[in-house]
Amino acid sequence: MQIKDILQLSPESQSVIVKGWVRTKRGQANIVFINLNDGSTIKNIQAVVEDGKIDEETLKKISTGACIAVSGTLVASAGSGQAVEVLAQSIEIYGTADETFPMQPKKHSLEFLREKAHLRFRTNTFGAIFRIRHALAFAVHKYYNDNGFFYLHTPIITASDAEGAGEMFRVSSFEPNAAPKNEDGSVDFSQDFFGRETSLTVSGQLEGELGAMALSKIYTFGPTFRAENSNTTRHLAEFWMIEPEVAFYDLEDNMNLAESFVKYVIQYALDNCKDDLEFLQNRLLEEEKSKPQNERSELTLLEKLKFVVENDFERLTYTEAIDILLKSKPAQKKQFQYEVGWGIDLQSEHERYLVEKHFKKPVILTNYPKDIKAFYMKQDEVSDATPGATVRAMDVLFPGIGEIIGGSQREDNYEKLMTRINEVGIDPENLWWYLDTRKFGSAPHSGFGLGFERLVLFVTGMGNIRDVIPFPRTPKNAEF
Amino acid sequence: MQIKDILQLSPESQSVIVKGWVRTKRGQANIVFINLNDGSTIKNIQAVVEDGKIDEETLKKISTGACIAVSGTLVASAGSGQAVEVLAQSIEIYGTADETFPMQPKKHSLEFLREKAHLRFRTNTFGAIFRIRHALAFAVHKYYNDNGFFYLHTPIITASDAEGAGEMFRVSSFEPNAAPKNEDGSVDFSQDFFGRETSLTVSGQLEGELGAMALSKIYTFGPTFRAENSNTTRHLAEFWMIEPEVAFYDLEDNMNLAESFVKYVIQYALDNCKDDLEFLQNRLLEEEKSKPQNERSELTLLEKLKFVVENDFERLTYTEAIDILLKSKPAQKKQFQYEVGWGIDLQSEHERYLVEKHFKKPVILTNYPKDIKAFYMKQDEVSDATPGATVRAMDVLFPGIGEIIGGSQREDNYEKLMTRINEVGIDPENLWWYLDTRKFGSAPHSGFGLGFERLVLFVTGMGNIRDVIPFPRTPKNAEF
Repeated sequence: MQIKDILQLSPESQSVIVKGWVRTKRGQANIVFINLNDGSTIKNIQAVVEDGKIDEETLKKISTGACIAVSGTLVASAGSGQAVEVLAQSIEIYGTADETFPMQPKKHSLEFLREKAHLRFRTNTFGAIFRIRHALAFAVHKYYNDNGFFYLHTPIITASDAEGAGEMFRVSSFEPNAAPKNEDGSVDFSQDFFGRETSLTVSGQLEGELGAMALSKIYTFGPTFRAENSNTTRHLAEFWMIEPEVAFYDLEDNMNLAESFVKYVIQYALDNCKDDLEFLQNRLLEEEKSKPQNERSELTLLEKLKFVVENDFERLTYTEAIDILLKSKPAQKKQFQYEVGWGIDLQSEHERYLVEKHFKKPVILTNYPKDIKAFYMKQDEVSDATPGATVRAMDVLFPGIGEIIGGSQREDNYEKLMTRINEVGIDPENLWWYLDTRKFGSAPHSGFGLGFERLVLFVTGMGNIRDVIPFPRTPKNAEF
Repeated sequence: MQIKDILQLSPESQSVIVKGWVRTKRGQANIVFINLNDGSTIKNIQAVVEDGKIDEETLKKISTGACIAVSGTLVASAGSGQAVEVLAQSIEIYGTADETFPMQPKKHSLEFLREKAHLRFRTNTFGAIFRIRHALAFAVHKYYNDNGFFYLHTPIITASDAEGAGEMFRVSSFEPNAAPKNEDGSVDFSQDFFGRETSLTVSGQLEGELGAMALSKIYTFGPTFRAENSNTTRHLAEFWMIEPEVAFYDLEDNMNLAESFVKYVIQYALDNCKDDLEFLQNRLLEEEKSKPQNERSELTLLEKLKFVVENDFERLTYTEAIDILLKSKPAQKKQFQYEVGWGIDLQSEHERYLVEKHFKKPVILTNYPKDIKAFYMKQDEVSDATPGATVRAMDVLFPGIGEIIGGSQREDNYEKLMTRINEVGIDPENLWWYLDTRKFGSAPHSGFGLGFERLVLFVTGMGNIRDVIPFPRTPKNAEF
């Protein structure tokens, strides 16, 4: 039985065996207290060793980090912490840990713990983060399953570039420095494993659309890759993405799906991760104590999550957003680093102004200029209401995170899609299968991508994306 | 509303809009029948167009493969198929499909459909397969979530080789043919994206163990890769694997977990995919009609699945299995291609004999010779009962599939593990983090890997693994 379940038992002096890792051991004259954790919950169980019950030799070997099994009696706890504790009768030591064990019971910096990512699961903070990450992942699957979507495993190794401009990792089985060459000196990929040049996918969307054009509602949830040299707190070279794609959905259906989905998974975490969220909330409050009053968050972590679940996301067009930004104080006072004007790709400072200052809630921006969005987005009817051509894109912006979701209605008109593909300079030969879906029974359809780590970042309140994935892949780092 | 739900409605002459792809259109003098499918179920809904209700021009454009929306009234069906049908009042055509649409209503070979993997979702067979694949994937997550496991996303890009001998794909961001060199002419990987040589993972197990040594129960479910030039019906270069890892589990706990898990997901498919399984069962029966009686399956697909769920797996040691094989008819008559003897790596023909002829049920083989298994498996106590040293390995063998699960208790003794690592010639420097878990609070633990596509192969009764993953990656093939 795990500690999570043992802590729920009533202390009827029943026999239990508790297995876990020692968090702390406190000795007194004739009694020793051992706090054990097995990762099933953030809560420890206390084992009490009365004088003489366990031989000195064994007790001496037990220190922070050791793994032990305590057999004993479950009794009501005398202390103020948990309702129950274990009165030890015997202890088996599975593995000791000497004083070089890095996770000693004191405050460690997140940077230090990143270097010890193989052991950081044994801290309260990272135990909480990865239990919440699990709950969010399960909620993703549950939401889509309950709503009639089929989970589609789109390929990781690909010969196409979904975005048309991604920085991609190359995949090859050639010996480094010994690739066979063509007569002109270029690499002869026809001799490579797949008989062609291949890379790691940046998105499963294009293949996801193939599924949606038959199964109607699909979603992907898999790793995606960017060989971008971005050393920031928001970027990973390898991250997990969720991409639903739905036949017969227009842009508004797509927005409704995105909002309902995000609210569902956050509510799921609120319902299922109370202890862990409270711990992380207190951790944040502690951290903010060192900040001046005006830099502290207005809402606690739980308040922030509840606020997102309980309030409608603000929906407006890109054109309306530009108007708001142009009239904003920072624009008037020339405080934005990047100038605002219709046609610009919104910068983080602009998104933050809209979300954190102006609306103070999640925002869905739609109908972006065609020229700053991907080729597959459905073109809007030309209208005098906007200074230029727009597409049915939508980005969901979250406070503290920025873009958490990017999506669109897809161009389902074969001629318009071909024109756009030629405009942006993609070789249609590489996308013959994608174009086929617009030739044979094309249908209006929409979808979006949600970066899973950004969601985990938001829900845990952590500040660095490297702390919400077990073993982050970033420039110059592929350890573990 | 999707067709799956509309078919459940009672025909109270309510108005409905049905959206989907035309499977067939049959015209008669004054009435037209259109069968529509939207992938939500294998069942089609019939739209009935009475004379003059829809203009000729529109009707003419509707053919197999077209995508349409039919607005009309839900009525009791006169025909023998479904309970309800739609009496069309208007039809909107989303996308036509001319006669070059490859999925015309006739029998296509699986080879042909593999070439058209972007459209094969629109056939009954592949619709069924991918709905079942979804159900199995969801059941995997549900089983582990309900049993207190945490889903751990282990890295895809890795600098380590979990098996010690895998054929791995290289990952790099260097321009092909333009990698910077060291003075000795070798590639200077310190200038590559991750600052070192990296590959695609062959298993998440080693990192999974890191999680289990803190969270107790974890599982992975992600893509894994083998750059093996195996052009068989059982191998993929890219496939999805499920790898649970559990602290405090010994080999027997591990076997219990494997058996309980596999039975659960198969039962889930039986409970949730009845229509699709029945279709695939009939497909198989049809296919077997062309075979001589003695080559046909003894059990239908559903009987086979129920048999697995309802019967205990046979458990025996490798040593016992060798004894059985040595005494077997094919061994006596020298009919095995590979000779049987203690120490051999069992070949497919041996496994099939045990599973399909001798026991006629799933088999779990344990305690394999140390020399044919991976370095991380826990060494058994030396015993006279076996001709050589063994490890606490277990393989689960399935009829028609062979090995579906491979696992073991892990070596948790630091010294024994180091000795073994040196014996097999792995550089311990590369696994410092793995070894750390045996230094700091080591614990008995066990786990296994299940190849997801092999499970889908078994449950769908399909014969080629390329037909149970949306877009297979195999030698010389990375299309779509």
